[in-house]
Amino acid sequence: MIKTISLSPPSLSDNTADADRLIRTLKHELNTDRISIEIDLLRDLPDILRKYDYQLRCLLFQDRNSYLLVNVSGADETSPPQIGLAVDLGTTRVVLRLINLINGNALGESTFDNPQIAIGPDILTRIHFADTEGGLEHLRDLIVNGINKELSGLCRTCAITPKDVYLISLAGNTAMTLMFMGLNPHWVIREPYIPVINTPEIMNVCKLGIKANPLAKILIFPNIGSYFGGDLIAGILFSGMNVSEETAILVDVGTNAEVVIGNKDWMIACAGAAGPALEGGLSKMGMMAGSGVIDRVSIHPATYKFDIHTIDNQKPIGICGSGVIDLAACLFLSGMMDIRGKLVPAACGNRFKEKDGMGCFVVVSASESATGRDLCISQADLDSLKRSKAAMFTILETISGTVGLMLSDLKTFYVAGTFGCFINPKSAISIGMLPDLPLETFKPLGNSSLGGAGMALTQDCIDTIDAIRNQITYLELNVNQDFMNRFSAAKFFPHTDISRFPSVSPDAMY
Amino acid sequence: MIKTISLSPPSLSDNTADADRLIRTLKHELNTDRISIEIDLLRDLPDILRKYDYQLRCLLFQDRNSYLLVNVSGADETSPPQIGLAVDLGTTRVVLRLINLINGNALGESTFDNPQIAIGPDILTRIHFADTEGGLEHLRDLIVNGINKELSGLCRTCAITPKDVYLISLAGNTAMTLMFMGLNPHWVIREPYIPVINTPEIMNVCKLGIKANPLAKILIFPNIGSYFGGDLIAGILFSGMNVSEETAILVDVGTNAEVVIGNKDWMIACAGAAGPALEGGLSKMGMMAGSGVIDRVSIHPATYKFDIHTIDNQKPIGICGSGVIDLAACLFLSGMMDIRGKLVPAACGNRFKEKDGMGCFVVVSASESATGRDLCISQADLDSLKRSKAAMFTILETISGTVGLMLSDLKTFYVAGTFGCFINPKSAISIGMLPDLPLETFKPLGNSSLGGAGMALTQDCIDTIDAIRNQITYLELNVNQDFMNRFSAAKFFPHTDISRFPSVSPDAMY
Repeated sequence: MIKTISLSPPSLSDNTADADRLIRTLKHELNTDRISIEIDLLRDLPDILRKYDYQLRCLLFQDRNSYLLVNVSGADETSPPQIGLAVDLGTTRVVLRLINLINGNALGESTFDNPQIAIGPDILTRIHFADTEGGLEHLRDLIVNGINKELSGLCRTCAITPKDVYLISLAGNTAMTLMFMGLNPHWVIREPYIPVINTPEIMNVCKLGIKANPLAKILIFPNIGSYFGGDLIAGILFSGMNVSEETAILVDVGTNAEVVIGNKDWMIACAGAAGPALEGGLSKMGMMAGSGVIDRVSIHPATYKFDIHTIDNQKPIGICGSGVIDLAACLFLSGMMDIRGKLVPAACGNRFKEKDGMGCFVVVSASESATGRDLCISQADLDSLKRSKAAMFTILETISGTVGLMLSDLKTFYVAGTFGCFINPKSAISIGMLPDLPLETFKPLGNSSLGGAGMALTQDCIDTIDAIRNQITYLELNVNQDFMNRFSAAKFFPHTDISRFPSVSPDAMY
Repeated sequence: MIKTISLSPPSLSDNTADADRLIRTLKHELNTDRISIEIDLLRDLPDILRKYDYQLRCLLFQDRNSYLLVNVSGADETSPPQIGLAVDLGTTRVVLRLINLINGNALGESTFDNPQIAIGPDILTRIHFADTEGGLEHLRDLIVNGINKELSGLCRTCAITPKDVYLISLAGNTAMTLMFMGLNPHWVIREPYIPVINTPEIMNVCKLGIKANPLAKILIFPNIGSYFGGDLIAGILFSGMNVSEETAILVDVGTNAEVVIGNKDWMIACAGAAGPALEGGLSKMGMMAGSGVIDRVSIHPATYKFDIHTIDNQKPIGICGSGVIDLAACLFLSGMMDIRGKLVPAACGNRFKEKDGMGCFVVVSASESATGRDLCISQADLDSLKRSKAAMFTILETISGTVGLMLSDLKTFYVAGTFGCFINPKSAISIGMLPDLPLETFKPLGNSSLGGAGMALTQDCIDTIDAIRNQITYLELNVNQDFMNRFSAAKFFPHTDISRFPSVSPDAMY
């Protein structure tokens, strides 16, 4: 929070100390009884007060039970900038966004691969690596140095310096958050699955090796538990479902499907493995979104000709999650894939090939691809996708059932994650991954983790964040017979009970 | 505060995170809603919990609005020690005391000269030096390195290491406190006399370069203002006058006379220059207490023979404040010094000598002194003492008069400072420095600054300390005609108004 204030200068009749004078006024303005000021800020304070003639712009950060005074500068335009950094700390990708704290405007954004991928693409490999000699420190250094390097470049682009960055807000999953702090995630994956800590303190960035202003503070979003991280809390904050009267559902689609249902009075969350198929994890052509990656696929209802869109309109090199969902929907609606998810060679025509003894569908022929090879989706890929979408749907059904709601009762369905931004809900419904709700029900949130982290920089959110955390009831997914029955029923396109997907028919092809 | 607790181990039905589990129990035990835990403590926490089977001894330090969890160890006897350090940060001397936090016992103590004396013996020289290039940093380094070195030696003596020290509590005057923190005391001595800060946060010792446990916290006693420091707040805390129904007075005798009068409902304080005479600052033979220094003097009522006591019973090398007061009382009561404080050569006999054109009194002859020279007190020394004692008495009169009390109304008169411990109240009354109250009224507190700092290590004092600070009304001593009249009247032995000192007569010689 930025607060512009005017202090009465000291005099013999009011010889309150410099810091006490400043805090007295801030307490009054903010109507708070506790403002904390660090010694490093005190060193220059007497000179700053006098230089700016007691007309000040103060940067404060709300902590639990107090405000932290982070920076004091002059109230005029010529004073140095006060910048915040929001971080979405993903297992695979890390996104940074700089925000001008004075007006709340985004200055710039950049994305980079999590350098821990060098240790292992999946979090499990990294957690095991953390137990090796020096492993934890190495993992921490990789991500901390990676952020420092990227931040430095991003600052240059935005014509500021890391020294101008006074607040950082970071949201990530539990294991990533722990490793970033140099805390061992050992017990996160071992019964009874407990992290070292769920609610870290707001701390000085120096403590963590982040190179911003030495006085900068960092808020790390709290986790609910080992399998429900701060990125989700940030997503909930960003969606606003925590302040809404109406019950909504929020889904973060990825290797893990994380789901929250609720409103301002209650929230229930669960998470379950959905498999890698939805996140570019297909055997050959699957990949994360990027230049030349197929992100949208449609099929002409009359000619059955595929229309393929790639990011940046480059020659195709592979396909990402949203493209796979579109593709499967097209294959199913056109009859090239049957209700069990099996390719129908006769319907596929010359696009059907056998490779390594397995049927596959040629999405892009060698002559048209950037790789010079056919881009294919195999039967195994489609089977994998089927399991993933079935898991997702079953989780949605289970959590809504737990609170006595039908999915059709929901008026708002938030789809989170960068990926969620690009999913075509119509395709996702066609394959039975999302329930058959009116299309306007689906609200893509984009990178809600980053969005929530950004909110925490400019608004006093800490109490809200803690309230979200404390309000959520985490539902341990009980993989019992009932769950398995539901899962089996969902392992069809779109579902064994077709009546639940009235909108899905070849007539709806696009 | 030490808290021994037993946690329920984690299970699938209670998979609260390690830190949250610990904090939950501590919150319940301490009946508080906020306990803060630092990241460095988290690193080892999972292993500590498991190693000690969830039977723990927690060291907490009360902060404003929360408790800080500083160390977690096993509840059994074999766990590492948890030690606290109290520091009396004097301009001239620094005293360290180690305290076992588990049972509150003092482990050891050591005193050393403030290394800043190399810059200047008086605080004013140092404050000016702080404004020179690198001066402030040099002053800070001198005191911080001095404490580190002394602490290291003291720990060795006590068979512990600085790493065992988790809490530090430090009380000093305002300028010393600021310089210790590396904050410029520039404005302390310039109108309108405002320090950078009066109430520093509890912080990590690392911030200040103190070499104790890296997780150790330091409480720096708050100041009232430029001329009333944390050492006095510590003294008030130690005396207990802040919780007493009865009005008491507390005097810290030194170059500055600092006086507080009050009770649990109100307190008024003032400070004024008393001159160096009371603190070993005499021209030739004056010195701080130490081996061979004369600390007690008496005179035989019949033979007028002086009985001289030295510390450690060594041959005399000089005289300290308590010795000077005794000596002046003896000279006055025996008639060797008159009511104006002038030596009476006829009465002094061969002990009177002229040196450099000035009369002086030989306290110890060259043959009996350790220096091989006469130890003398000169007429100038006695004049200086007269001004000092008059200033002290005038301040006492003024402050009690301000609240409508006679000094004779007081039932308790605390005399603080190491020096206060050794003053013979009877001598101090005889020269008119202290009021003529029954001797049992005077309560020497010893090093009350150190005592108060020690209390803050083992008791939850922070709110009390802040309450004392906020309760005190600081009385700016108005050196007007009225004050000067009182001062003039006090510049006699014991006073122009002898009726105010009924107990003082040659019959009371001792």
